[in-house]
Amino acid sequence: MKKAIFFHAGCPVCLSAEQDILNLIPADQIEVVHLGEDKGKITAAEQAGVQSVPALLTTNGNVLHINFGASIGDLK
Amino acid sequence: MKKAIFFHAGCPVCLSAEQDILNLIPADQIEVVHLGEDKGKITAAEQAGVQSVPALLTTNGNVLHINFGASIGDLK
Repeated sequence: MKKAIFFHAGCPVCLSAEQDILNLIPADQIEVVHLGEDKGKITAAEQAGVQSVPALLTTNGNVLHINFGASIGDLK
Repeated sequence: MKKAIFFHAGCPVCLSAEQDILNLIPADQIEVVHLGEDKGKITAAEQAGVQSVPALLTTNGNVLHINFGASIGDLK
C-alpha cells in the first residue's frame, strides 16, 4: 500500500509535529523520513513539492507544510 | 473521547487540506469546525493558539498550522 510520507529534520518543531502526527495517523499508513540523516532523499522531496520541514506528502501527491522548522535549502 | 479539531474556513487551501487530513486520520478521532460559518468559535480557536487556517488542534493542545489559507483575523 502506498503510504503518506512525513519529512522532518530532527528540529524541535519537527519532533513535536512528528509526535502529534504519529498519534493521529495509523502507523501502517505513514512512513517517516529524516532528511537530516538521509540527505540523498532531499532532491526527491523537493521535486515532490516539499519546501520546508516538517511536511507531510500525501498519497495523492499533495504536500502539507506543517508549522515551520527549516527550509529544505538549509538542509543541504 | 477527546478529538483533534480541524479548523478551516472554506478556502481552497482549507478544503484541499481537509480532504487530505480526513483521508489520513480516522473519522472518530477528528472534529471539523468551519470558522467561516461558525464565527462564535473564532475566539476559542484563537485562545487555543490557532493563528491561521487550516489548522489542526491536537488532543494535547498543540496547534499544527497546515499550509496557509487565511489568517484568523481575516475571518472576523
